[in-house]
Amino acid sequence: MSLEKYSSPYSLPEAIDLSHHLSILSQSRLESPLKGLQRFFGKPGMLSLAGGLPSTEYFPFEALKADVQPYDSFAVKPESAAQGGPLSWIWNLFGSKKDTTIPITVPKYPEHEGDVNLAVALQYGLSKGLPQLQAIINEFSSKVYRPAYANFTTILHAGNTDGWMKAVTTLCNPGEGVLTSEWTYPSALATMHPFGIRAVPVGMDSEGMSSESLSQVLSGWDEVARGMPRPHVMYIVPVGQNPTGATMGAARKKAIYEICVKYDVIIVEDDPYYFLQEGPYVHPSLRSSRVKHTQLTDEEYIANLAPSFLRFDYQGRVVRLDTFSKTIAPGSRLGWFTCNALFAERLERQAETSTQAPCGFGQSLITQLLLNWKFSGYLRWLKGLGVQYTDRRDYFIDCLVEKFHLELAPAAQFGGSMRYTAYDLTTPYSEKAKKKPLFSFVPPSSGMFIWLQLHLEDHPQFKALGQETLEMQLWVALAEGGVLFGPGNMFSADRSGDEASKPGHFRISFSNAEFADLKKAVDIFAKVLYKFYNKSH
Amino acid sequence: MSLEKYSSPYSLPEAIDLSHHLSILSQSRLESPLKGLQRFFGKPGMLSLAGGLPSTEYFPFEALKADVQPYDSFAVKPESAAQGGPLSWIWNLFGSKKDTTIPITVPKYPEHEGDVNLAVALQYGLSKGLPQLQAIINEFSSKVYRPAYANFTTILHAGNTDGWMKAVTTLCNPGEGVLTSEWTYPSALATMHPFGIRAVPVGMDSEGMSSESLSQVLSGWDEVARGMPRPHVMYIVPVGQNPTGATMGAARKKAIYEICVKYDVIIVEDDPYYFLQEGPYVHPSLRSSRVKHTQLTDEEYIANLAPSFLRFDYQGRVVRLDTFSKTIAPGSRLGWFTCNALFAERLERQAETSTQAPCGFGQSLITQLLLNWKFSGYLRWLKGLGVQYTDRRDYFIDCLVEKFHLELAPAAQFGGSMRYTAYDLTTPYSEKAKKKPLFSFVPPSSGMFIWLQLHLEDHPQFKALGQETLEMQLWVALAEGGVLFGPGNMFSADRSGDEASKPGHFRISFSNAEFADLKKAVDIFAKVLYKFYNKSH
Repeated sequence: MSLEKYSSPYSLPEAIDLSHHLSILSQSRLESPLKGLQRFFGKPGMLSLAGGLPSTEYFPFEALKADVQPYDSFAVKPESAAQGGPLSWIWNLFGSKKDTTIPITVPKYPEHEGDVNLAVALQYGLSKGLPQLQAIINEFSSKVYRPAYANFTTILHAGNTDGWMKAVTTLCNPGEGVLTSEWTYPSALATMHPFGIRAVPVGMDSEGMSSESLSQVLSGWDEVARGMPRPHVMYIVPVGQNPTGATMGAARKKAIYEICVKYDVIIVEDDPYYFLQEGPYVHPSLRSSRVKHTQLTDEEYIANLAPSFLRFDYQGRVVRLDTFSKTIAPGSRLGWFTCNALFAERLERQAETSTQAPCGFGQSLITQLLLNWKFSGYLRWLKGLGVQYTDRRDYFIDCLVEKFHLELAPAAQFGGSMRYTAYDLTTPYSEKAKKKPLFSFVPPSSGMFIWLQLHLEDHPQFKALGQETLEMQLWVALAEGGVLFGPGNMFSADRSGDEASKPGHFRISFSNAEFADLKKAVDIFAKVLYKFYNKSH
Repeated sequence: MSLEKYSSPYSLPEAIDLSHHLSILSQSRLESPLKGLQRFFGKPGMLSLAGGLPSTEYFPFEALKADVQPYDSFAVKPESAAQGGPLSWIWNLFGSKKDTTIPITVPKYPEHEGDVNLAVALQYGLSKGLPQLQAIINEFSSKVYRPAYANFTTILHAGNTDGWMKAVTTLCNPGEGVLTSEWTYPSALATMHPFGIRAVPVGMDSEGMSSESLSQVLSGWDEVARGMPRPHVMYIVPVGQNPTGATMGAARKKAIYEICVKYDVIIVEDDPYYFLQEGPYVHPSLRSSRVKHTQLTDEEYIANLAPSFLRFDYQGRVVRLDTFSKTIAPGSRLGWFTCNALFAERLERQAETSTQAPCGFGQSLITQLLLNWKFSGYLRWLKGLGVQYTDRRDYFIDCLVEKFHLELAPAAQFGGSMRYTAYDLTTPYSEKAKKKPLFSFVPPSSGMFIWLQLHLEDHPQFKALGQETLEMQLWVALAEGGVLFGPGNMFSADRSGDEASKPGHFRISFSNAEFADLKKAVDIFAKVLYKFYNKSH
């Protein structure tokens, strides 16, 4: 693969025709009946009595305002780096946040042309979004994801759940399959299911989807045995994968991209956790040797992030979904597609008959925030946010270190990635304990989740009750003890049966609970787990 | 039909099973994999590490604020009632609006429990919407629409375009037909089209859909000849219909409802113009005799509105779509369903895999506005808004009165409704002029639109060019003259051919342009129209 493929400006060759990927639903979307008449619309001085627009005089909102945090609210140096134990730095964390806020305003009729205009934001006619926001997201995709071709398109959606629904109905036909990781986000499957579109699970390792497994699935595809044509769409969460927390590096992405070129597969990259990249977890006993954390320049920060699939997309076969849900707030219900112009046009048609434009209140406030922060300020915010999640990840695993005997070793089934295996703390290093690991996990380098693999095969009732029943018994015991984890089996992409052969898992989110509650949750987990296994002692 | 059917509290009998109306798409929506575990969620003191929620500490918005108009910004007495000509009161109108605004605030962590909480509004987990907003819309539907059964459900959507998309995918299967008025909103058809769902046009008169035509369509349904089963879903805009402006009274609604009972049809009531009810248009020469307008009590105001189909819905077969687009602003992208609990549950499942909750910025600001105004204040706002549209409607028709000779007469083909027919002003009352009407229309009593029927059959090139070509020639001549109307043919529900037999129309919106521009548009219209017909003189 030559580097020239990835050098911008490189326009997508017209020879690459991706129109055969458009679904029946998408192809049969009506053109606007006004299409032939558009030359008359928007002409200066034209009196339009054609649309069904209310007068902006009747919008009761004269101005929106907000108090927002400055972009440097959060430190860029992990608190845990300088400290020892998990408890000592909790209060620093809360104390480090700045209390000052900045006022922003969106007036209905701003004085300066080009300013965000509430009357425009709250009116019909903007399914592409506010012009200022269009410019921001286009610049952002261009500078941060650096797509391999220059003539990409960005277009707003109402959050990645909406974006994925629109991608499914644009690309997939009933009876088709979509390639997913074997453990995946259940809502993504629930979106496909009513349309008769099934998940085709692909094996994973510590970097997420395995390129070898993908190649095997596609090369050996037997349409008759599988009951469906070879899949031409992939759904993938490549950073901080949900639920496993796995993050995919550049080499794996290139390998997967090339397989998708070979088998003509469109990659839908759902990447909500992209800016929650946390770096490797370092055991507290080794933390003093951790490289000193200095503030990166914008260029260094971007270069250090795992690249988007867009970076390698010399054929325009990536549809990237971005969202403000994890970087601003989930209630934003705002995000955007970055993709080729052909798909973007169909996605825009879909918006016209469903969501129309995303909410004008949210659009205008987020636009004003980003204009206030500017590009570099928003990057600074994202850097600080990443460090917050790093602290949370470190703190949660540090709590596990306190309650269990964790051994670090390369795990063969996880591509040689370093994996912690947990044993009973009360009998460390004994042969007996080593024979009975309690759970294991690969510390995530991104995102919100620890994907804890249970070692229930050592439970005395394993043969009698089976994997799934034991997993649920433990889950219920934990819930009764006062802590909720995500039950692993709900994330299985394989709904075809044979669940029992899969190892039990819990998805544990360290993203939201207060630090004291994270610790409390680990205490309860240890207590319940020891009791659960003690049956076997 | 007995009145008892409509008396509340009357719970929907369980014997009425509407589940056979649910589409394949809707039936195959997955239940949440957490369904059996819900008893553990939300328990006080429970530590939840199950969800993928960011911490609210990371939302950069600390408070939202807005300057809003007071609910009595607009007068409740039509300006035109007290005045003579169309020009004399323009300035009064603009002068009458109050300049004061009220500040509202939504803090991230409010002091008082029960206040709107920005941290909640911007977090995941509210596909039903903010609790305070749920309460407001439920009270509103209950008090204003007074559904015939007590156990109705209200649930948020992201505007009526989103609501209609969700209704289509909940109720309709590919290959089915949906009953619509013969002239209808083209976007509603564009929503259905990709799913292979076709419009089944029903004839109209000045009240909108004709019950006789509906009865004929359904009673004589020939599945083989039509190529589809008898429709079981109706799409209807019953107030200020788009494009005809027609408004349906109680008797017609009852008649249509009973036909829908007989043929087991679900009525989707898309009612964005409900609060733009303007009363009859009175010719300026008769306006002094107009009943003096006094402020109605809330009860009188509600009683004077055309009733919703919900009022007669003793079987739960109405899905009503409400929106804030015309009463607050289109950019709200916020509205709600009122319907039976069975359909509501499926609609909520759909939201979970597409829009999720409507935008939290919009939800919280609109909720705070409505809590500030209170129920009665919002009604007062709606009363004022209705009067604004009354003034606009009156003003626009007054302008036509100035430029054309308008004769008022009952029109047989429009159910005896009073209809204005326009003749050349320069040759009034002459036999020659009367033989050549230029256009005609029923003055709308609601909404935003004048539906102007062209009388192109008198054009000398009518036989040579045909209806549709002449309509477009005139439309282009108007556009070149500087005014845009909605071309009538784009609103035709009958896409099966034979368009040429339909009379030409323009949909003219008086909702948005400034008054001076409305007048200017009529001047251009008169000039262009005279020139267009003068070819024939």
